[in-house]
Amino acid sequence: MGPIFDKKKIRPDIPGILLLSHGPMAAAVLSSAEMIVGEIDNAVAIGFEIGQSEAEFSAMIREAIEMLPEGTVVLLDIQGGTPCNQLVYIALQMKKECWAVCGLNLPAVIEAVSLRETCSGKELAAQIARTGQEAIVNISEKLRK
Amino acid sequence: MGPIFDKKKIRPDIPGILLLSHGPMAAAVLSSAEMIVGEIDNAVAIGFEIGQSEAEFSAMIREAIEMLPEGTVVLLDIQGGTPCNQLVYIALQMKKECWAVCGLNLPAVIEAVSLRETCSGKELAAQIARTGQEAIVNISEKLRK
Repeated sequence: MGPIFDKKKIRPDIPGILLLSHGPMAAAVLSSAEMIVGEIDNAVAIGFEIGQSEAEFSAMIREAIEMLPEGTVVLLDIQGGTPCNQLVYIALQMKKECWAVCGLNLPAVIEAVSLRETCSGKELAAQIARTGQEAIVNISEKLRK
Repeated sequence: MGPIFDKKKIRPDIPGILLLSHGPMAAAVLSSAEMIVGEIDNAVAIGFEIGQSEAEFSAMIREAIEMLPEGTVVLLDIQGGTPCNQLVYIALQMKKECWAVCGLNLPAVIEAVSLRETCSGKELAAQIARTGQEAIVNISEKLRK
């Protein structure tokens, strides 16, 4: 399992961003987002890996939420999957408040980074969901003369 | 650069799925999708890497579209980024028809896999966009008793 936060300094003044997915998606989206906006503080990505137990995965999520400041926004790959179900289970047991949006895409992550210093968790989750939806655009007509 | 299709057999009877992103996101989303639905035929992921030239990246996209059967659906990380701009540029020059949706998320990829054997490219792109949008859900209220 190993420590997952060694590389990040945690700033107490901004909400955390926690990305959860099946497999490598969460870490890769964070990495791709950093190619666009630069290094992202207070961001942690955790993937549920093949062969990993749900208990181990769950412990990592719990550790991340405990480590990040209050008001963490969680972005999840898909509703109803193991990352989503584990988060709901954990959040109901924890005292620390967090917010969550399923259907993670890159525009949603970039929006979370840009808004989290000025929005409350509640507003942030709502705005991330809107931005993520609006950023899904069928551009097929642009591929034709 | 190297060959990017060695591991995949290309089936001529189903449209391709091409994932394009900044950095590792495209490959990771494909890998995460395969954790859920099993191996995905005719799927190629290409990331625009730090230090790579746009010409090299563009050549890889072109090679993928040429190799995949007619009617490829392209899923892109974010509208207006290099992967998106390169695709539009390439598609306008190529005779092979393809379709594209920006704002790539995991539910959209899974929808593409499940519908591509029965939908035309045009219908598929429209449906992927709808599914991707509908799959972005704010579940914050489920985290509280």
